[in-house]
Amino acid sequence: MPSNKVVTYQGPGKVEVHEIDYPGFELKEGPGVPPANVGRKVAHGAIVKTVATNICGSDQHMVRGRTTAPVGLVLGHEITGEVVETGPDVEFTKVGDLVSVPFNIACGRCRNCKEGKTGICENVNPERPGGAYGYVDMGGWVGGQAQYVLVPYADWNLLKFPDKDQAMEKILDLAMLTDIFPTGFHGCVTAGVKPGSTVYVAGAGPVGLAAAVSAFLLGAAVVIVGDLNKERLEQARSFGCETVDVSRGEPKDQIEQILGEPEVDCGVDAVGFEARGHGGDSGREQPATVLNSLMEITRAGGALGIPGLYVTGDPGAHDEAAKRGALSIGLGLGWAKSLSFATGQCPVMRYNYYLMQAILHDRVQIAKAVNAVTIPLDQAPQGYAEFDQGAASKFVLDPNGVLGTTG
Amino acid sequence: MPSNKVVTYQGPGKVEVHEIDYPGFELKEGPGVPPANVGRKVAHGAIVKTVATNICGSDQHMVRGRTTAPVGLVLGHEITGEVVETGPDVEFTKVGDLVSVPFNIACGRCRNCKEGKTGICENVNPERPGGAYGYVDMGGWVGGQAQYVLVPYADWNLLKFPDKDQAMEKILDLAMLTDIFPTGFHGCVTAGVKPGSTVYVAGAGPVGLAAAVSAFLLGAAVVIVGDLNKERLEQARSFGCETVDVSRGEPKDQIEQILGEPEVDCGVDAVGFEARGHGGDSGREQPATVLNSLMEITRAGGALGIPGLYVTGDPGAHDEAAKRGALSIGLGLGWAKSLSFATGQCPVMRYNYYLMQAILHDRVQIAKAVNAVTIPLDQAPQGYAEFDQGAASKFVLDPNGVLGTTG
Amino acid sequence: MPSNKVVTYQGPGKVEVHEIDYPGFELKEGPGVPPANVGRKVAHGAIVKTVATNICGSDQHMVRGRTTAPVGLVLGHEITGEVVETGPDVEFTKVGDLVSVPFNIACGRCRNCKEGKTGICENVNPERPGGAYGYVDMGGWVGGQAQYVLVPYADWNLLKFPDKDQAMEKILDLAMLTDIFPTGFHGCVTAGVKPGSTVYVAGAGPVGLAAAVSAFLLGAAVVIVGDLNKERLEQARSFGCETVDVSRGEPKDQIEQILGEPEVDCGVDAVGFEARGHGGDSGREQPATVLNSLMEITRAGGALGIPGLYVTGDPGAHDEAAKRGALSIGLGLGWAKSLSFATGQCPVMRYNYYLMQAILHDRVQIAKAVNAVTIPLDQAPQGYAEFDQGAASKFVLDPNGVLGTTG
Amino acid sequence: MPSNKVVTYQGPGKVEVHEIDYPGFELKEGPGVPPANVGRKVAHGAIVKTVATNICGSDQHMVRGRTTAPVGLVLGHEITGEVVETGPDVEFTKVGDLVSVPFNIACGRCRNCKEGKTGICENVNPERPGGAYGYVDMGGWVGGQAQYVLVPYADWNLLKFPDKDQAMEKILDLAMLTDIFPTGFHGCVTAGVKPGSTVYVAGAGPVGLAAAVSAFLLGAAVVIVGDLNKERLEQARSFGCETVDVSRGEPKDQIEQILGEPEVDCGVDAVGFEARGHGGDSGREQPATVLNSLMEITRAGGALGIPGLYVTGDPGAHDEAAKRGALSIGLGLGWAKSLSFATGQCPVMRYNYYLMQAILHDRVQIAKAVNAVTIPLDQAPQGYAEFDQGAASKFVLDPNGVLGTTG
Repeated sequence: MPSNKVVTYQGPGKVEVHEIDYPGFELKEGPGVPPANVGRKVAHGAIVKTVATNICGSDQHMVRGRTTAPVGLVLGHEITGEVVETGPDVEFTKVGDLVSVPFNIACGRCRNCKEGKTGICENVNPERPGGAYGYVDMGGWVGGQAQYVLVPYADWNLLKFPDKDQAMEKILDLAMLTDIFPTGFHGCVTAGVKPGSTVYVAGAGPVGLAAAVSAFLLGAAVVIVGDLNKERLEQARSFGCETVDVSRGEPKDQIEQILGEPEVDCGVDAVGFEARGHGGDSGREQPATVLNSLMEITRAGGALGIPGLYVTGDPGAHDEAAKRGALSIGLGLGWAKSLSFATGQCPVMRYNYYLMQAILHDRVQIAKAVNAVTIPLDQAPQGYAEFDQGAASKFVLDPNGVLGTTG
Repeated sequence: MPSNKVVTYQGPGKVEVHEIDYPGFELKEGPGVPPANVGRKVAHGAIVKTVATNICGSDQHMVRGRTTAPVGLVLGHEITGEVVETGPDVEFTKVGDLVSVPFNIACGRCRNCKEGKTGICENVNPERPGGAYGYVDMGGWVGGQAQYVLVPYADWNLLKFPDKDQAMEKILDLAMLTDIFPTGFHGCVTAGVKPGSTVYVAGAGPVGLAAAVSAFLLGAAVVIVGDLNKERLEQARSFGCETVDVSRGEPKDQIEQILGEPEVDCGVDAVGFEARGHGGDSGREQPATVLNSLMEITRAGGALGIPGLYVTGDPGAHDEAAKRGALSIGLGLGWAKSLSFATGQCPVMRYNYYLMQAILHDRVQIAKAVNAVTIPLDQAPQGYAEFDQGAASKFVLDPNGVLGTTG
Repeated sequence: MPSNKVVTYQGPGKVEVHEIDYPGFELKEGPGVPPANVGRKVAHGAIVKTVATNICGSDQHMVRGRTTAPVGLVLGHEITGEVVETGPDVEFTKVGDLVSVPFNIACGRCRNCKEGKTGICENVNPERPGGAYGYVDMGGWVGGQAQYVLVPYADWNLLKFPDKDQAMEKILDLAMLTDIFPTGFHGCVTAGVKPGSTVYVAGAGPVGLAAAVSAFLLGAAVVIVGDLNKERLEQARSFGCETVDVSRGEPKDQIEQILGEPEVDCGVDAVGFEARGHGGDSGREQPATVLNSLMEITRAGGALGIPGLYVTGDPGAHDEAAKRGALSIGLGLGWAKSLSFATGQCPVMRYNYYLMQAILHDRVQIAKAVNAVTIPLDQAPQGYAEFDQGAASKFVLDPNGVLGTTG
Repeated sequence: MPSNKVVTYQGPGKVEVHEIDYPGFELKEGPGVPPANVGRKVAHGAIVKTVATNICGSDQHMVRGRTTAPVGLVLGHEITGEVVETGPDVEFTKVGDLVSVPFNIACGRCRNCKEGKTGICENVNPERPGGAYGYVDMGGWVGGQAQYVLVPYADWNLLKFPDKDQAMEKILDLAMLTDIFPTGFHGCVTAGVKPGSTVYVAGAGPVGLAAAVSAFLLGAAVVIVGDLNKERLEQARSFGCETVDVSRGEPKDQIEQILGEPEVDCGVDAVGFEARGHGGDSGREQPATVLNSLMEITRAGGALGIPGLYVTGDPGAHDEAAKRGALSIGLGLGWAKSLSFATGQCPVMRYNYYLMQAILHDRVQIAKAVNAVTIPLDQAPQGYAEFDQGAASKFVLDPNGVLGTTG
């Protein structure tokens, strides 16, 4: 049995590398596994040896103690790797395949999956629609910041890269197919981005930058990214975005300077519930700031894509309403402007094949745009810490040394 | 010059019939006309002699003093009538045409109109996108609860009934094409209603009932309407809806009794910002109640159509946040369920031709469903009062005695 | 082992009931099974005891000798029944479930299935995308005009009825979910039918009648059905359709009499390649007649939905071009009118859940509309013969006597 | 009165520059003007002084004598220029505006225009839906290969460039907004091109190259252009396309060499009815060749966008069927692959604003891609001749010397 080092959550601010059992074709009892999922047989699963596994901004919500994630949770839902074993029910996935694993776990057999809504599969999480690896309230599936991980419903979930050697040459780009590239893309699609659009993306973290890359891929005429973090804004400018420094005030005026008018066609919220205020308030958390601001700067008749996470409860929130997940939203303005709003987890499978094609044929450089930085698995704790402090990087872990880091 | 009796707003709770000048092809100074619209030439306009002109729930917001509508405003935006005069730029509209007038005034020449977004026309209201007849902040166009009304951009805005005699036989149904039928239909379309859907419509006022009729026309399997008003619920049951009495508690449990599960595929908010609480709170206004409730009862992956009006400011609101138009919305739940939300005025022109066809070919009985009641123009004040008290009726004024009332 | 009586093709015009082995979880060698599918393991399959299994118009193409179907082929792809056994990889389908089997066989694991294109699954037919039961060139899967049939990828393919008793009360309606109801519905959807549309359906066979029912369910204002067969036209009129007798000449003039104009918004071809001429030519086969006629009578900007089957080769065709599958199409007219055309097998899974809901909630009476007639399996040969002679009926076989026929 | 030199058709192969009257606000009698349009008042019109006016491939159909275009017809429908006069009904268009004129003439007041289907306006051509400048059977509107041209319904039809100086810097790119850029884009949109698609464009003339540019703008992973003309293929390669030389045989094999599989996701027909055979047949006209070939190489479930013109009758066709506009199409193959087909004139207004934005913000270099070459109006006859001989250029006429040519 090979060793299986994993990254775990050990309480607010604490991430540690531990070793756990090599996975089998069953979901065993463990931190955060709902009772109804304990002992679940996974004959349809594949065991993937990770090649790349990324730290995600949504992991930070847990690590900061803003969720009810249990101590001991194995983290990680952005998994790329090689199939090393398959269960007896797997028919088309083969040992040796180099694959991308969508962060949403889906069964491929329920009504939602049949409609392509793999972000809200009804069969993988007994507690509510939708499952994921290594995430609180997402079914208890073991995380993939690990050397080995079990992928259920492998034939349905896995995206195989057509040529292994070609794929290894672009592996850091392809590693973004598990989550942030489709997520940013979904934000743009639901915001109605199309050739010629003007787009504002709130947030220059990895999802925001991925949304900006996506906006260009969709043909946007102008992509404007707003953030408080100067280093991240610099990163956005590196691939052709205009930027808005929200610490200098509301985006509206800066947008007017860029476009000659204070509105854009499409708005993307790549921040979510941990938003901070703009201008003078830029230190304080104000969970509805981004949404209220996007309603102001999005043109009447436009749409807001909201890939940024909003939660049903936030124990760390700064006021009582936000603790219950209630935000003070100026919906009247949105209504007067006939805006529409799209929320929720990206159904990765809807997009990942096509985005893979765009990568393989050199139409996007997503790894460069988000400044992908490879580190050994053992350095995951430092990666989490630096990312939390606002590093303009996307950290890619290299649990099996395939990417050439030495841990 | 014929006389021109009109219905006017004279302060909170006060509606009076006055007489004003017969309209000409110009927008003259008057209550609520923005300075930039005063003196505007309307050579593209038609003068319509009203056959039917309805009282709308959105008129009530003004009459209750919940807006900044100026005293003296001529009310009315649901106009059906006969063209009696056309301006020199009118080419296809002819004197004698029997027409439906969409409540949204649109130019047919701006970017939004070219995209079919006639609810947010950029050229008819100098203050913001979107215009309407007889409505606060909608460009100052004179209302149509009147014997005669000027319709700008007549060739673009008017829908001609193909055969006058045939149309007069269904005139009460056709009178609903100006606003509530398309508005209810738009609510259903944006909520994703299609053949086989289960639908919950919040609100059994005329727009809610029109949404329910629309849901059936779109093929819904089950249409459930919720309200506090027993008479209106009875009206909903009269054409096949299931009903939920929200005074008896949250809709969820009653929905479960009807469907065997506590969720529907599609949610429509036909209430808006003057919503009242459910169950024990059912007396008190709680502007976010309907939205929060719809997020709970709409199935993951579903959509909310929100034709109910939400305002940017509400001087009559019961708390400070609501006065600024800010609502306390549990968006986290909506996000977890991947819901989408569509807001704004219905672009009537997108639907009215097809809904007219459905009426003329006996596929819907919208007038009966909303319990259309014809009254003389002079009885408008009573109509407003009864409607405000929750009458399960849609009042249709008959300013020129064509519908056979005697005032 | 229970007996397994089946309906087989024994050469042009010859249908016989034989007995074959009870199915196992493997696709064995047999008439029409491509070598690459022989011996295929079907651990993901379920064995269904048929409750209802219909004769389809597309079966007739084979029986008339218009295809290369091999002698001995077990017919039947419209299967409704009860699950009596499941393979080891089946997780959610249970013995005892009453289910509808879509006629398209799909794997639920390929790129096309993931996109909802289950009519062109890449994994079930080694010869080309798309598989079906009991059909030439569709992968060699054994037909379901049988007492028992093997359904591959059962969790993906099967639609379970939520309540068995309730379902048995409407079993003839539900039996139409396997093919003709979704197929007719797909024809209407791809023709752009929506509330208020005027629709022309070419062909009053079961698919045409199902398209007409679907058009009404989609809210069409007027549904016109055209055919040569007076009995079938009478059937169409029985549920509110207008009709055109194409033996009396081109549809155009009769449409004008019905609508006051010679065009409809939407055209549906429910005839396919065995079309016969109109008017004086109504005896002769003219494979492009329906398409050319639909281009003439569909309004500019409209769409043609083409559920009617067109083949790549037709050994029984009356001219050389048609033998090669080439039709003489007046595309210039379609182009001048900016028409669009949608072809291909209906992906049943896209629609069957919702159409089931419409049936279970009494929104459609599809069995009555197509005049479903139940006969014992043993009378299948007579059913085929009567149907071929133009009976205005849809024959439903009752292989296990559940529907109360006695064979 | 300024002079008004124009380009006219004088019989097969004969194009001459003549002088005609400066336009007024009326459509006067002239070659090809339908009687019902003679004397039509155009108070809603604007007179445009041309800055750029292009020769179009569709003009060549007329000049080659393949249509019933009358001698004396003023050619030209790709007009960019400055408004120098407006009719009394024009409200928003101002003298001095620099504008793009969509080739489709539309009223902005009929049912089709209200639905955005400006290619089939019901009011501008008494003979059938759809109008254009300087084109046979398109309403008789005077062509715009002229110094001055009358644009009807100016407020509706014209697209104003926001900044004149900025626009003049990119005037050759913007000149492609009148027709070929939106037309190629429409071909791609209707073929379903999206980020990551593989696309085959049949034809490397200006529309084909514009389609290829559009495919990239829409995010296509690989764009393959096929033609017989080596110079045009070279032009396609200049901006990143792969190419197929159809004189070397069917596209299938060459596509397989490029992609590793013989099919693409999306097919665009930018050739139309004057198609020539492939491989050994490459000299002979075979009007259905391109469509039949596209059905073969487009992946099952894909779509064909058909901006290439197909005509209702072709007096110059090489066989009787083609003279009547009937093509021998292997529809069975398309049906088996569930393909869809979209035809017709591009509704330019649906796209031109957004494509203008893409040009103004440097996201596309369409003029360079199609090799725009500016010539004086007087050299139009040579331009027509060279283009007819297959020059890999798009000729832009400069009737008023604004582009710096000297005639």
